[in-house]
Amino acid sequence: MYRVACMPGDGIGPEIVAEGRKVLDAAGEKFGFDIEWTDYEIGAERYLQTGELITEDELKELSKFKSIYFGSIGDDRVKPGILEKGILLAIRFYFDQYVNLRPIKLLPGVSTPLANKGPEDIDFVVVRENTEDFYVGIGARAKAGKQRDELEVIRNLYNVRFGIDVETDADELAYQIGVLSRKGSERVMRYAFDLAQTREKKLTSVDKANVLTDVYGLWREVFEETKKSYPDVSTEYNFVDAITMWFVKNPEWFDVVVTPNMFGDIITDLGAMIQGGLGLAPGGNINPKGTSMFEPIHGSAPKYRGKNVANPLATVWAGSLLLDHIGEKEAAAAVITSISHSIEKGAVTKDMGGSMRTSDIGDWIAKDILNG
Amino acid sequence: MYRVACMPGDGIGPEIVAEGRKVLDAAGEKFGFDIEWTDYEIGAERYLQTGELITEDELKELSKFKSIYFGSIGDDRVKPGILEKGILLAIRFYFDQYVNLRPIKLLPGVSTPLANKGPEDIDFVVVRENTEDFYVGIGARAKAGKQRDELEVIRNLYNVRFGIDVETDADELAYQIGVLSRKGSERVMRYAFDLAQTREKKLTSVDKANVLTDVYGLWREVFEETKKSYPDVSTEYNFVDAITMWFVKNPEWFDVVVTPNMFGDIITDLGAMIQGGLGLAPGGNINPKGTSMFEPIHGSAPKYRGKNVANPLATVWAGSLLLDHIGEKEAAAAVITSISHSIEKGAVTKDMGGSMRTSDIGDWIAKDILNG
Ligand SMILES: CC(C)[C@H](C(=O)O)[C@@H](O)C(=O)O
Ligand SMILES: CC(C)[C@H](C(=O)O)[C@@H](O)C(=O)O
Repeated sequence: MYRVACMPGDGIGPEIVAEGRKVLDAAGEKFGFDIEWTDYEIGAERYLQTGELITEDELKELSKFKSIYFGSIGDDRVKPGILEKGILLAIRFYFDQYVNLRPIKLLPGVSTPLANKGPEDIDFVVVRENTEDFYVGIGARAKAGKQRDELEVIRNLYNVRFGIDVETDADELAYQIGVLSRKGSERVMRYAFDLAQTREKKLTSVDKANVLTDVYGLWREVFEETKKSYPDVSTEYNFVDAITMWFVKNPEWFDVVVTPNMFGDIITDLGAMIQGGLGLAPGGNINPKGTSMFEPIHGSAPKYRGKNVANPLATVWAGSLLLDHIGEKEAAAAVITSISHSIEKGAVTKDMGGSMRTSDIGDWIAKDILNG
Repeated sequence: MYRVACMPGDGIGPEIVAEGRKVLDAAGEKFGFDIEWTDYEIGAERYLQTGELITEDELKELSKFKSIYFGSIGDDRVKPGILEKGILLAIRFYFDQYVNLRPIKLLPGVSTPLANKGPEDIDFVVVRENTEDFYVGIGARAKAGKQRDELEVIRNLYNVRFGIDVETDADELAYQIGVLSRKGSERVMRYAFDLAQTREKKLTSVDKANVLTDVYGLWREVFEETKKSYPDVSTEYNFVDAITMWFVKNPEWFDVVVTPNMFGDIITDLGAMIQGGLGLAPGGNINPKGTSMFEPIHGSAPKYRGKNVANPLATVWAGSLLLDHIGEKEAAAAVITSISHSIEKGAVTKDMGGSMRTSDIGDWIAKDILNG
């Protein structure tokens, strides 16, 4: 028996998570395990009513779970950043989920915007660092900067350039700080190297060490050091700007890609698109020894809320990552196989050219697993 | 008569710039102006011999020019960042070239990696801020951080997470600071709005205001303010992760895109790829009232150096941007027309499916302009 925490969240979240649960329950029935779900009502609605995002008590409770199944958060009535930082990033950081795992895989029958590329060309995994970089949330407007050395440099620069006096012209500047650590970089790189060893033994590291020389200079240094323990894995570097080109031009080059947090955010959305769009892109936020969280990488799409039209496949796929994570490898694979069947048979939602409703999809896939 | 400074640089730089000059000289002959070229030998070779990147004296001299024609820099013998920061970024910053202008335009006959997209779908312009953001070059390793408040926060975070003591464990952390200013954001946005008014009157702003809330929160605030002066231009926001998807899926949505520096770096490489690759992607670094610089956005490709195989079209196109900038609009347009002719007639280098050498291309296009 597995205990899983469930956070459907906002917008289409509850509808898609409901389908995912049908599928995971069916997988349990087929492969001989039970999932006990515990629901948590977090999201915009509660925030708007009570001002609460996620509480310290809830985080403590959640630490008893090995896995969280997450829908999506976001609401037009809330300023950008509040829910994302207060809930999603708060969970990633609190549980030190340092690996953000994103398979980029074009399933047969899915159309990609790339010309002349098929499932044999698009099949790699991005391992995104998930706790450092520009996601640490340190920054401010200028007036907070008075006492700081770096801002002395900034002050001179802006005084010359614009005649801005940061003492009196508060609100004229903003700054943001990113941090990378040797240990934080090494652990995620090791995860990526280990993963590469189970695949094609090829690892690409992403950075922008030619401009952000401090943080990504350290990243490169650690990569150079770490790769010595993995002589069987071939490695290369790509600047982040270049990698967006190769994802589109030569996705077949990639096997495992390891990337700092922010660049990972960007390139995995691009990856999602080449594998058929956000409707099909799952992510796992993993702490190998703690509480991990699985989610579709798309947002809450408020305008489709309650319309029973959202595509739940990314969420179902995230469920497969969850099963894989808890050790139910066979069940995890069966979920992907049945997702593929649903696509082959056209048992999909409108965005994928089908005519099914959101609530039909979970039933269809669950049945396929049970019959499989 | 126009005086233009010329910096061929490293690798294939000299070869491609030579072709660009043939074309610009021909355009001058056809449209009745002369260009006087002054060469500057900057780049890896000099750096390796003398340790000099670009000197204060050279910068002062260059300030007498309205335009610089730049090839490319970069050499495997030099650590990433040295030449980029010491030359290219140094020029952009010294001359306050706050607009990095990058047309994304698929010319007829060029193949794009996108399925079912043609020249009518891919035709927009990215206006990249070019002097702020994470390009300001402020950052350090941890030991430099002792006296700083932000590093107090970082120190606590890392002490809890990894037991790192930043006082004694110097070299364990690195940080990087990005800065955005109200004035710096506003001026580039105004440039983009003005440009949109000459085109389809549609402007998309790029940020990541939901995570890097400080810098990009300011960016959004300034955009909201600035757009009030342009009621005829329709506007929207895209998060940087999302925009990489739409560039690939729906490039026809875009007209003018305005973006902070680092995201601009990333999305313009992606843009370059959808318009046919780096062989065809030019950029202008513009200070509307000072010294501007025009360059292909690709690198120096050291392994093709001296082989007479490099594709000079991006450099020729950059020359067209230069002509446009100095007011020779007709000549600028003629250069693009003749680039198109060369593509239609297959008078292109091997990477584009032709059989011409680098040194043939400039002659071909120059002749086409003179006959045009
Ligand atoms: C919603 C946002 C905070 C998040 C991120 O930037 O990490 C999302 O884009 C993602 O990629 O999971
Ligand atoms: C070479 C590098 C410093 C530069 C940048 O990052 O701006 C390049 O990638 C570009 O886009 O012009």
